Amino acid sequence: MRVFTALLAPGDALSRYRAALRLVPLGTETVPLREALDRVLAEDLVAGEDLPPFSRSTVDGYAVRASDVAGAGAAPVTLRLLGEIRMGAPTDLVLHPSECARIPTGGMLPRGADAVVMQEDAERSEEQVTVRAAAAPGQNILRRGEDVHTGEVVLPAGRRLRPQDLGILAGLGHAAVAVRIRPRVAVLSSGDEIVPAGRPVGPGQVRDMNTFTLHGLIQRAGGIPVPLPVVPDDLATVTDALRRAAAAHEMVLISGGSSVGERDVVPQAVAALGPPGVVVHGVALRPGKPAVLGAVGATPVIGLPGNPVSAMVVFDLFARPLLAELLGVAGDGPPGSRLRARAAQAMRGAGQREDHVRVRLEERADGIWAEPLPAKSGLLTTMVRADGVVVVPAGATVEAGDEVEVRLLD
Amino acid sequence: MRVFTALLAPGDALSRYRAALRLVPLGTETVPLREALDRVLAEDLVAGEDLPPFSRSTVDGYAVRASDVAGAGAAPVTLRLLGEIRMGAPTDLVLHPSECARIPTGGMLPRGADAVVMQEDAERSEEQVTVRAAAAPGQNILRRGEDVHTGEVVLPAGRRLRPQDLGILAGLGHAAVAVRIRPRVAVLSSGDEIVPAGRPVGPGQVRDMNTFTLHGLIQRAGGIPVPLPVVPDDLATVTDALRRAAAAHEMVLISGGSSVGERDVVPQAVAALGPPGVVVHGVALRPGKPAVLGAVGATPVIGLPGNPVSAMVVFDLFARPLLAELLGVAGDGPPGSRLRARAAQAMRGAGQREDHVRVRLEERADGIWAEPLPAKSGLLTTMVRADGVVVVPAGATVEAGDEVEVRLLD
Repeated sequence: MRVFTALLAPGDALSRYRAALRLVPLGTETVPLREALDRVLAEDLVAGEDLPPFSRSTVDGYAVRASDVAGAGAAPVTLRLLGEIRMGAPTDLVLHPSECARIPTGGMLPRGADAVVMQEDAERSEEQVTVRAAAAPGQNILRRGEDVHTGEVVLPAGRRLRPQDLGILAGLGHAAVAVRIRPRVAVLSSGDEIVPAGRPVGPGQVRDMNTFTLHGLIQRAGGIPVPLPVVPDDLATVTDALRRAAAAHEMVLISGGSSVGERDVVPQAVAALGPPGVVVHGVALRPGKPAVLGAVGATPVIGLPGNPVSAMVVFDLFARPLLAELLGVAGDGPPGSRLRARAAQAMRGAGQREDHVRVRLEERADGIWAEPLPAKSGLLTTMVRADGVVVVPAGATVEAGDEVEVRLLD
Repeated sequence: MRVFTALLAPGDALSRYRAALRLVPLGTETVPLREALDRVLAEDLVAGEDLPPFSRSTVDGYAVRASDVAGAGAAPVTLRLLGEIRMGAPTDLVLHPSECARIPTGGMLPRGADAVVMQEDAERSEEQVTVRAAAAPGQNILRRGEDVHTGEVVLPAGRRLRPQDLGILAGLGHAAVAVRIRPRVAVLSSGDEIVPAGRPVGPGQVRDMNTFTLHGLIQRAGGIPVPLPVVPDDLATVTDALRRAAAAHEMVLISGGSSVGERDVVPQAVAALGPPGVVVHGVALRPGKPAVLGAVGATPVIGLPGNPVSAMVVFDLFARPLLAELLGVAGDGPPGSRLRARAAQAMRGAGQREDHVRVRLEERADGIWAEPLPAKSGLLTTMVRADGVVVVPAGATVEAGDEVEVRLLD
């Protein structure tokens, strides 16, 4: 475990890790709609009723039989006004030929009617309405079930609920929804030099940054971050901390202590806790080479490099997809999480490693350009300034002006 | 108020509305970093110290004087091993010519050293280290202040905090951060046909969808949604409900009751509550023409159409920018909220109105294509199926194959 031999490409490392873990989605819980934003739908939402539940007008005007007013564009047609539809109430009006009824937006279409003429195209005098525009069947109405019909799958299981999804759930009569339980993710920082937040920093020491960055990343990915105390780079202490964290959480992230130095305690600790142990140690990746992908019992334990940019890259490549698996998220996210841009400068790549280059986006007259930021992986400010990341495959380079795909940092 | 005359374009309507309101950002509150994700930074974050706080190694290896090893690529150079740097501790080692010190990743660089040779490029025997690769000054080290220097503005006020921003805040010693107070937004649904969630629906009635969609949209925009009971389309009741809602919240959204029908109660109610009253009633927009932009005292009151798609469009054009103003958000969002695609079909536009067309994105071999969804504004499922919205300006059309900008629905 002292040297990195035969480094796997990130994609291969993830496949091997997934195969070793065989994760299944967590159970479900029912939450009120008001707490359901961004939660992951546990089961297909099958419509139990039609939406709209009755044929409705989409304008203020007059419900008509379209055949009566087919010629009204050429010569006005006069209809007998049968009555008025009231909002929120059923109607027992029935239109016969040459009859119409006053109807408000959202009002229930009376029997016999198959279109609505806008009030701007009609003139009322006493019990008569003169129509000056033709209406095709279906015009200005929403038919019963036109939005959703009973039995239709409206939202598939695995969907991360958006505001409009909450609306349709409400429209179909649900006040609560079954969603996936959120995985609890323990966050450990290991390192003799790491000082917890709020404590004074001495010479040679640095403040814990990763706990907070990972806290936010876990929240964004749908997990519940559980920050644990900083542990020193000591095998017995790290082993004990990992054992306890793995027993009480669905995933464990530990940053620091995974490099190939004397103090390489994370992989040793994971190995010491029994099979499956360390599945992958070291990935052909820049930054993030020292990543450790392991498990304690059924709980994934990921060792992230101590430097904050590497930790973010490793989280993204390995922790985020596992969280999606635990949540049963369908698909690999919206297309908006990526965009195409042109490289403002060459990106030389990282030889045999896949290079994750932080870029800043610039909108110019001729499109969007991606400006690479300084590559030193210890600089968290490059992540703060970056809008996204460009992946340069192992062995490849990007020339200035080449089109690249940018994964956006949110 | 019965007819829409001289409809303003959405951009002009928003400008007029903003000028009438003259909103200022809300006050600030201090929250722990763990609750700060997505909150809006109230003040510039000025670094009170350097990051890193001392010059550090970024690898495991040997701290050297670069001038000593300048020729090591051609012929190995042997250095005297002075000692070892311990993690998390200060060092009082001083390197003189032809001396080196063992250093771990993150370790504090000793005085005299200006580079680190990776351990893979060196061989130790007893008190000597043979170096086989040259190192330039600065190689494999992060200099004190290289990430952040004291006095630098690291994050500007108005920034919506991302995970990496929390990391840099922690790195600079902050356990808490001053953020903008979140605006409370009252959500009212008005309509005789609207049945609150969980109640049985009779003929002619429909369930309240907008309250839930708006709830999610307000959360995403950084506000605190406050759902209020559904009110009937009755002037006295709506007026009273608006007066009370405006007094207790920073913004009021009321959906339904804003069309130009007999029951056009929202603008009447807003007008009845005194100046500034209704600033804009009706916008050259599809869907969303009946929007009401008004105020009761200093509180913005926006009347959204009852149909859910129109309500979303009006929220987006008018409520979201006002929330950004109340939050003091800088800029108009990340570039990732928009992308370019090609129109899979023609979009005919809405004549003199700006047309907001829901589209589904398809990734094909030759790029991303935007497929327009059915335009009937009452169909919430078009929003559920949509990935984004294409704006077709008033008087314009889009031909199949044209490049369009898609605003992504998140």
